[in-house]
This record gives sequence, C-alpha cells and structure tokens, in this order.
Amino acid sequence: MASAFSTEEYLGRIRKTKQKMAEKGVDLLVISQPANMNYLTGYDGWSFYVHQCVLLHQEQEEPMWLGRGMDANGARITTFLTEENIREYSDDYVQSTIKPPMHFVADVIKEKGWDKGVIGVEMDQFYFTHRAYVELERSLSRAKFSDANALVNWVRVVKSEAEVEFCKRAGKIAEKVMDAARKAIAVGVRECDAAAAVAYAQYSGTDQYAGDYPAIVPLMMAGEATKTPHLTWTEKVYQQDEAVLLELGGAYRRYQAPIARTIYLGKKPPKLLNETASVVLEGLHKALDTIKTGVTAEDVEAAWRKGIAHSTVVKESRIGYSFGLNYPPDWGEQTISVRPGDKTVLEPNMMLHLIPGIWYDEVGFEVDASVRVTSGGYEHVYNYPLEFFLEE
Amino acid sequence: MASAFSTEEYLGRIRKTKQKMAEKGVDLLVISQPANMNYLTGYDGWSFYVHQCVLLHQEQEEPMWLGRGMDANGARITTFLTEENIREYSDDYVQSTIKPPMHFVADVIKEKGWDKGVIGVEMDQFYFTHRAYVELERSLSRAKFSDANALVNWVRVVKSEAEVEFCKRAGKIAEKVMDAARKAIAVGVRECDAAAAVAYAQYSGTDQYAGDYPAIVPLMMAGEATKTPHLTWTEKVYQQDEAVLLELGGAYRRYQAPIARTIYLGKKPPKLLNETASVVLEGLHKALDTIKTGVTAEDVEAAWRKGIAHSTVVKESRIGYSFGLNYPPDWGEQTISVRPGDKTVLEPNMMLHLIPGIWYDEVGFEVDASVRVTSGGYEHVYNYPLEFFLEE
Repeated sequence: MASAFSTEEYLGRIRKTKQKMAEKGVDLLVISQPANMNYLTGYDGWSFYVHQCVLLHQEQEEPMWLGRGMDANGARITTFLTEENIREYSDDYVQSTIKPPMHFVADVIKEKGWDKGVIGVEMDQFYFTHRAYVELERSLSRAKFSDANALVNWVRVVKSEAEVEFCKRAGKIAEKVMDAARKAIAVGVRECDAAAAVAYAQYSGTDQYAGDYPAIVPLMMAGEATKTPHLTWTEKVYQQDEAVLLELGGAYRRYQAPIARTIYLGKKPPKLLNETASVVLEGLHKALDTIKTGVTAEDVEAAWRKGIAHSTVVKESRIGYSFGLNYPPDWGEQTISVRPGDKTVLEPNMMLHLIPGIWYDEVGFEVDASVRVTSGGYEHVYNYPLEFFLEE
Repeated sequence: MASAFSTEEYLGRIRKTKQKMAEKGVDLLVISQPANMNYLTGYDGWSFYVHQCVLLHQEQEEPMWLGRGMDANGARITTFLTEENIREYSDDYVQSTIKPPMHFVADVIKEKGWDKGVIGVEMDQFYFTHRAYVELERSLSRAKFSDANALVNWVRVVKSEAEVEFCKRAGKIAEKVMDAARKAIAVGVRECDAAAAVAYAQYSGTDQYAGDYPAIVPLMMAGEATKTPHLTWTEKVYQQDEAVLLELGGAYRRYQAPIARTIYLGKKPPKLLNETASVVLEGLHKALDTIKTGVTAEDVEAAWRKGIAHSTVVKESRIGYSFGLNYPPDWGEQTISVRPGDKTVLEPNMMLHLIPGIWYDEVGFEVDASVRVTSGGYEHVYNYPLEFFLEE
C-alpha cells in the first residue's frame, strides 16, 4: 500500500488549506475529522475510535500525524509523511479518564513552538469531543482558539482531476451495487440476504477497481419501514406488493458515489406511491437541468420546488448536499446543502448528491443523482436509469 | 419492525441508569452516543451523522427521543416510546452554521422544566461535539452541567440474559464469518474479493439469525500491512507465504461478537511469526484461565504478562476491553480496559474481548477470545479453534 495520490496532489491541497487558514487568521490547524486527516496526508485507518489528529502549521510544509502507537505503522504505510512527522502516544492514553490524549497533542504543539498563535479546531465535528477541546485549551494557555469547523471540508468541495477519477470509479461500483440489489431483492428472500449481496458488490467492486466500504451501510427500508429513511435491514422476507427504498453507495479508496432507487415488488403500486414517484422524478430532472457553474445551491432547490409546485408533494428537508471523500458516519461533506438560503455558487468539479426523498406515514419514495458540476452543466457520476422500478 | 427487547427490559435498564444518576447527583441525562440511545429506548437508525439525543430525567419514567424530522418515524418504528416522547426538529437545523440543533434540545428541556437541576452530558463521546456542549450550556443558564461520560456505558457493562442471548447469536454469525474468510483467502485472490465474502457472511448471518453490520468493518491486513492493525483491504492479490491478520466480527441486532485470527498462506511461516504465535496463544490461555467473578481486569492482564515473561514478546497496549451493544466506530464499550491500573472487579455477564495483538515492523500476529464472565469462570461467545492457521 501507499498513499492514494501523488505527493504533489497532497502538497497542492495543503497549499489551498493554508491559504484558507491565512484568510481566517489561523496559524495552526488541529484536524480530527477522518476525511480531513486523509485529505491532507493520505492517512487511512479505522483508528478513529480513539483520539488522533493531524496538525498543519503555516510555517511547516508537511502536516504531522498524531495518533495511537499501534497505528503509527499504519500512518507510515498510508501517508506521504516523513518519519519526523509521525508521532505516537502510548497506550495508557487510550480511553483513560486520567490521561487525556490531548495532553500529548499539546506537548507536541509546545515542542514545536506552535502554542503562541491562533489554533483552529473543528468545534462541530464528530471525533473531536468537548473534553478534547477543554484539555487542549487548558494545556495551551498562550494560544488563542478559533473555530475552524469545516475549513478543510470547504477546501475539499472542489475536486482535483485525480479525485474526479476516483469518484467515477466509485460510480462504476455503485452501478454494480444497484444491479446486485435489484437482482437479490425478490418476494420470499430475507432482507438480510439481499443486504449481503449488496455488501458483496460494494466491497468486491469491479474487475478493474477494488471496492471500499462506503461511509454509510446499506439502507434498505421495506414495507412499513419505507415511511422513514436511515433504517437498515431485518430478518423478514420481502412480501408481494411491497416497496423497498434503497439508499446504497459505491466507494473507491474512500471516495463515495451514493445511489438511491425505489423498487416495488409487483406491477401495481398504490396510487399515492405512483404519483409521488412521477412528481419526484419530474422535480429531480428540473433541479438537474439547472445545475451548472455559476448558479447557487438554492437555485437548484428552487427549480425542484417549482417543478413539483403543481402537485401535493411537499419536501421540507434539503434535497441534496456535496459529497466526495469520506468515512462513517456520513458521505455528505458538511459544506453545501441544496436548500433555501444556501448561496454557494457552483464551480466545476463540485460533486452534488441530489436525493429528494419523500416519506409519508404510509409509504416513501427515494431516487437520486450523484453529479459533477461542469462549466456548462453537469455529468452523472454513474449511469443508472432514473426510474421507479416495478419488479416481479 | 419493533424494539429489539420487551418494554420491561428497557424499563429495567432505565431504573439502573437512574440509580447511577442519583449516585452522581444528575437530574437529567442528555445522551448522544448511539449505543446508549439504543440501550435506553431501542432506537436504531443510521441517523447519527446529524445531532440527536435521548433525554432521561429522574422524574419521568420514559426517556425522550429528540432528532431530525425525517427520523421520527424511525423512532416510532424502533423504540417503545409513546408519541409525546418523540420530538423532531425541522430540517433547517441540519448542519446549519446559524441554527444549532442544541437550541431545539434546550427548548424542549425548558418546556419540560428540566433546566433547573444538574444536567449530565457525555463530554468525551464522539457524536457530542464541543459546539453541542457550548450551545446547550449557553441556552440553559439555570442548569449546572456535569460530566456523565460513560455513565450509561457502565450500566451496559453487565448484560441481561436477553442481551447475552443476542451476543451468542452474534457469536454464531462470527463463526460463519471466520469460516467465510478462511475459505475465501487464497493465493491469487484479490483482498477485496475476500472482504466481500466476509461482508456477505456478516450481513446474511445464519439461517436462524439475520446478520447486522458490525461496528467495525473487516480489518484484513496482508503482507506488509500486517505490521499494523486497523487497515482494511486493497486490490492486491494474496501472495504465497504471506500472513493475513483478520479482525472481524459478527453482529446481531447491534450486539457484537468480535473474532480475530491470523492465517499464513504457506506451510513455513517465518520463525519470528511462529514463535510469536505460540507465545501469544500461551499468554492468552493464561489470561483466560484467570477470568472469573471477583478478579479484576488488571489481574487478567497480569496473568497474560506473567505467561509471556519467559519470551521476548512485549505488549505495551491493553490486551482487551468490554464489548456488547454498539455502533461504528467501535465495538468496545469504553468501560473496562484489560491493563495495569484497571481495578474493575469482574461480575457475571460482563463481556470481555481479549485481543493481545502484536505488530512488529516486519510482521504481526492477532488472535482473540470473546467471553462472558460467569461466577466460576467464563464462557466463549463463539466456538472457534484458538490456533494460528497455516493454509495452502
């Protein structure tokens, strides 16, 4: 194994990040969000259940990785960092009530003389707890703390060509995943066995590209559960005349391609579901037609809203968000939300996941599009029919 | 779908939690850790990528679930809560920089008149961010905040009979998962295809018990990567005379059964690996022999340490921890750590995962045991040979 990208690619990301840091007056970034750590260094390990971080200081080209001793070799394998920038803490810091890992982090910051300026931390990111903040602040009395939440996320929002290629590979996998789901789901089959077929396709990938674990497990709501998103699967068998909502994904080296479709196990879906499907598909097309460089995220939502205004369908939640590199629990990037008030101007190589899901108390419908913004429009990350699938 | 356990079971857990709250002088608990939310209410959705919580107040029998609007039906399906205790916030709170979800939480707390006492929050749990804390504290000026980190985790540490049964079912799945891994891994096979076979077994489960997603994805380090834990898989094909570390798991309705073994693709492993394997297995047996009600966690580690003292093997990290119900990123419970200084006295129906992994710069070795503490000893959660597997 080695870093997923060239050192040049990482150095470019670091330059862009430092520019944003300068704009915000941040001297040192302390980054714990796993995708941000990966983005800046290549680090890729399932070690984010303990405290760890990447430090990025204006005056040092290379970031530093700080983590648990047993994960340092993982950093040596997956990052481009030189040995002096991989620092490991001893195991008695792990889940200790008396020895907080942030004391170790603070010691490194002091050793480097980085404790006198403005330190930006991710104040609203999972994986950086309240206690982590408190211990860091207490240990670095000369520093001024500033909220750098989503600072790196906003650098990530425009993808490099190399990243676009990885998303497309994830898209190829996503096509296989949805095919596998549709093939596996049938009346009499256990939901868990269909989920297994989905996972097989996700991890195996294509002949050319190894699959990776998506940032969200397969969400596969059937029957009664279609009135909600975000459930997984059960031991029940699929029933005749039952809807199944599929919110799946393909992933390639941590780059995501979300894919959602609804299938109905029968030829005659309930009227409400049929009508909802056709309105949602119409609205999704209207939203897609708007996407191009220069329009805002809220413009895209407005087009959807206008497109469904003739119907009774109401959608109170955002219809999409940006995506790319990520780890559980989310493939969304926590940057753009496609909703009223989001005035982000779209740029080439932003990636949007439009998923205008509708959940009534009786039934729901989900369909999506994962697209790359281009100068004149957009490009699908995968090719999959935008349809409501009626299966036997 | 419905709650995984009887309402009686949840009410018993709630009583035990309230007792601990009383001991610590906590009037209201604000719980965001997904396993703790599930433990107290049954809530099971992949919605923990947005802010959500369970409130538990001394003076109300039922907890309250607070979350995003679209997940409220998920709460209706998976919890035992009555309608008045399911509260949903509107979607403009989601990942908003101007409308923090904790303002909604604070409003509910004030509405219930629960803002005058001591509020316990999980200060060092992922899924409760620094900003969540700050916004809650700012909005509830009459409350006193107290650290209730791991309070519910420590209630979870002793399992009910119903929970033991779920762990055993997870164990049955774990056996199938390890079989699937050993069957799939062979010279010339891509690592990703073996991972796919593992995932299939995990989700599919047994004929009797549907699998669930384990809290940790398959960790499958091969070749060079065996010098570290916590990596996943690649597109490489397995090589002759290569070691593979397998840290896998079975899960049943969010209850976990971690299983780890090492295989070697050949008949003549390097001397260092062979010797390490035999020392580690010997030490693990010594540790297991110590386990029974009344001994401490550090006693178990001491037995391991004594058991390997004759060798050159050194293990600086903890050799185990408690496990049970969990969500990504960890199946560990963040309670017991089997290491020097942990004086937790073992009780019947505690679950320990002993995994004395060793990672040298050349190669590593992992083997484990997942056990339930009994009055006179312990019981394996699954039956799988404690061996270093040499495969063709």
